[in-house]
Amino acid sequence: MKYLLKIEVSLKSGHSDPEGETTNKLLTELGYIVDSVDVSKLYTIQLNAKNLKDAKLKAEEMCNRLLANPTKDNYSILIEEQE
Amino acid sequence: MKYLLKIEVSLKSGHSDPEGETTNKLLTELGYIVDSVDVSKLYTIQLNAKNLKDAKLKAEEMCNRLLANPTKDNYSILIEEQE
Repeated sequence: MKYLLKIEVSLKSGHSDPEGETTNKLLTELGYIVDSVDVSKLYTIQLNAKNLKDAKLKAEEMCNRLLANPTKDNYSILIEEQE
Repeated sequence: MKYLLKIEVSLKSGHSDPEGETTNKLLTELGYIVDSVDVSKLYTIQLNAKNLKDAKLKAEEMCNRLLANPTKDNYSILIEEQE
């Protein structure tokens, strides 16, 4: 079975996000009234797995082994069955 | 009114995504059966706007003026009313 994973990896609160701060500053200079800007990374992955449970397990594993740094990152996972 | 914008900025197809290719290679080496990996940027923005139509207009403007490069990027916008 094929699954589409959408994995968002964002900084835990309290960690500095210079790109978000700079974007906030620039948007404010452009005249927008912005309270906050956070920048995160979104992985869109087409994965082969046995079933939805297996896909979820593999997605969690991928985050812990490669995509996210547990010291500074949070992650969230969306899974969509494709066939 | 306050609105939460989720703006995904991704590379147009045909543009090289070395980070996605490297992640694909590493996930494959870790034993996952992966067909594709795309890496994009997700901006989460708290914006003040008059109404939903105004928020949508401002979000489109932000993409065209700052967040996305029309030559190489696609963007998609999700808007959620907050109060």
